[in-house]
Amino acid sequence: MRILILGGDGYLGWPTAMHFASRTNEVLVVDNYLRRLIARETSSEPLVDNPNLEERARIFAAATNYNISHAIGDCSDFRFMERIFREFQPETVIHYAEQPSAPYSMIGYDQARRTLDNNLSATFNVVWAVMSHSPGCHIIKLGTMGEYGTPDIDIEEGWLEVEHNGRKEKFLYPRQAGSLYHTTKVLDTDLLWFYVRTAGIRVTDLMQGPVYGLSTEGADLDDRLMPNFHYDDIFGTVINRFLVQAVAGVPLTVYGKGGQTRGYLNLKDTLQCVELAAAKSAKAGELRILNQFTETFTVNELADRVRRVGDELGLKVAIESVANPRKEAEEHYYNPAHSGLLDLGLKPHYLTDDVIADMLERIIPYRKSVDAEKIMPRVRWS
Amino acid sequence: MRILILGGDGYLGWPTAMHFASRTNEVLVVDNYLRRLIARETSSEPLVDNPNLEERARIFAAATNYNISHAIGDCSDFRFMERIFREFQPETVIHYAEQPSAPYSMIGYDQARRTLDNNLSATFNVVWAVMSHSPGCHIIKLGTMGEYGTPDIDIEEGWLEVEHNGRKEKFLYPRQAGSLYHTTKVLDTDLLWFYVRTAGIRVTDLMQGPVYGLSTEGADLDDRLMPNFHYDDIFGTVINRFLVQAVAGVPLTVYGKGGQTRGYLNLKDTLQCVELAAAKSAKAGELRILNQFTETFTVNELADRVRRVGDELGLKVAIESVANPRKEAEEHYYNPAHSGLLDLGLKPHYLTDDVIADMLERIIPYRKSVDAEKIMPRVRWS
Repeated sequence: MRILILGGDGYLGWPTAMHFASRTNEVLVVDNYLRRLIARETSSEPLVDNPNLEERARIFAAATNYNISHAIGDCSDFRFMERIFREFQPETVIHYAEQPSAPYSMIGYDQARRTLDNNLSATFNVVWAVMSHSPGCHIIKLGTMGEYGTPDIDIEEGWLEVEHNGRKEKFLYPRQAGSLYHTTKVLDTDLLWFYVRTAGIRVTDLMQGPVYGLSTEGADLDDRLMPNFHYDDIFGTVINRFLVQAVAGVPLTVYGKGGQTRGYLNLKDTLQCVELAAAKSAKAGELRILNQFTETFTVNELADRVRRVGDELGLKVAIESVANPRKEAEEHYYNPAHSGLLDLGLKPHYLTDDVIADMLERIIPYRKSVDAEKIMPRVRWS
Repeated sequence: MRILILGGDGYLGWPTAMHFASRTNEVLVVDNYLRRLIARETSSEPLVDNPNLEERARIFAAATNYNISHAIGDCSDFRFMERIFREFQPETVIHYAEQPSAPYSMIGYDQARRTLDNNLSATFNVVWAVMSHSPGCHIIKLGTMGEYGTPDIDIEEGWLEVEHNGRKEKFLYPRQAGSLYHTTKVLDTDLLWFYVRTAGIRVTDLMQGPVYGLSTEGADLDDRLMPNFHYDDIFGTVINRFLVQAVAGVPLTVYGKGGQTRGYLNLKDTLQCVELAAAKSAKAGELRILNQFTETFTVNELADRVRRVGDELGLKVAIESVANPRKEAEEHYYNPAHSGLLDLGLKPHYLTDDVIADMLERIIPYRKSVDAEKIMPRVRWS
């Protein structure tokens, strides 16, 4: 299959590229290194300085004989996107090309504006590039469980059947997100749903929870093929951040009461999910929404687990509650459905003590690279 | 009150400016003449060529002694918006500054992109200009009943209480619009709701139906103060289009079966509604949503009424069904709530035969200006 991966330099993008290339697909990755630029601007560089796409592709080809093509450019530039689609004629496009940091989107006008412009432009351009140059191409879009927020009713898988005054209607599940970044994903979904209804494009929207881990088939071949690994307050997802804090001897920073519950998944399962979605395309005129996570935890549960496993490894892990920089419910109902990907064949890798220990051991060699200044929250929601 | 009107050159903007200025408010209107430019580009000029804002303000001041200030600039340019807010310090901002044509937004990439960029940027900039320079300023945003689409259940006033699996939650009423233009209004609402929750701004979102009419207190003073009046397929709302067709001796063009039902209101009632909203501000941290229309009609009912009244005036009106250029339900359930503005004191002007006759008589002097080429649908949804 010809697979185009937008945002192919990212935490998910590069592992996804290796995963599909190893299964003899023709893979083209696109990125403009915006995340690297923002990481530099905000002093949020990853634990390890990853090689660029050209170098990574060379290292990967040397190790596997599989080829990953790349193109450097901006998905919000439609002329660039048109050229890519015209020349590559993708059968599947996996769209990760978004500014992914909630705290970054809350710093101020310029950061919010960049997030809004980049994310909506990229999504809009994907839709139009498909309609104009690759009709029939399956769009796999990375959404987020954060689009739903934390409503006081069960979260369904994308859609909600409503009975009201004796009549029934099925709606896109109402969305209400907790940061401007997450709100741009809500807007993306609105846009995709409009063009699905009107132009009959095929879209799978993956509502993903926070991902953890740095081991994948590809990454395990060579340290230089590891995904970018952030532990800072801007780009670091909570489990990755806790792992690095445990290794560095810095207290695990729990925001507020720590009762915030989310659905998590292992990076290996992200790859499985995207592969399953690609293998079975959404139909023409279908917006298929899949909630992409394997288990739910509160922040306190995650901190306790990392501490327990860390202590067993002799790390002496402390936990510290800090003032919550975000506006969010710290204790709430949370019961999201997630059967769609299991039905497609997902075999979850759960967050066992062994998995946590493996991740900690993988990070320990980089202990001296940790910069504790990057860990405490630097952005407040107000 | 210091009232800033964005999009003050528009069909609603200019009458709103005269209305507030006549009630001894300090009024500043902003526009970049984008609608005039698009009308020229698409050969959709209005029935009468309206003077620019400088001339209109001069004519209005000569007739009334009330002053309307104006500034020409682009609301999607934040530096311009910041200057306006810093210098004028509005207590209320009325935000009409959007590309308002559904057909225009469906022509192709460039037109869709311009609609998306202009409408979201303007709304985003209003929010940030208020947060940065006029905290406490009440934002009155023009939404559209089209955000709701035509669901098979009652449309409530902005919000929907859902009972699901034995639990309850109140959501923003699910939105699903029929054009890219209408979809940008959905995105606007998502954005406003996010910043209302997070930053505590005050917002009234007026979900307005199609407006008709060209008579207002201000417009009746001098023909040169008439609102811009479009009868073309791009900018013409259906009643205005039918009125001009009746006068020009062109058949009234009903799209498809004509069972499409919408909520309509007289331009005079738009002015009342906006005045009522301004007089009683939304609270800090409140998104107040009001459905702004006074009565519902099918397209067939409107055509029949215009024909009946036109025939009484000797106009010999024909009705012709043409292939529907839009993707929309031509027969559907439609029961939208609209009590909020009535509760605030709205006294509706209904679409009586007398009102239709008055509008026809007002248009008759311009009969020779009608260009029949502009009437038939030139844009298809596909």
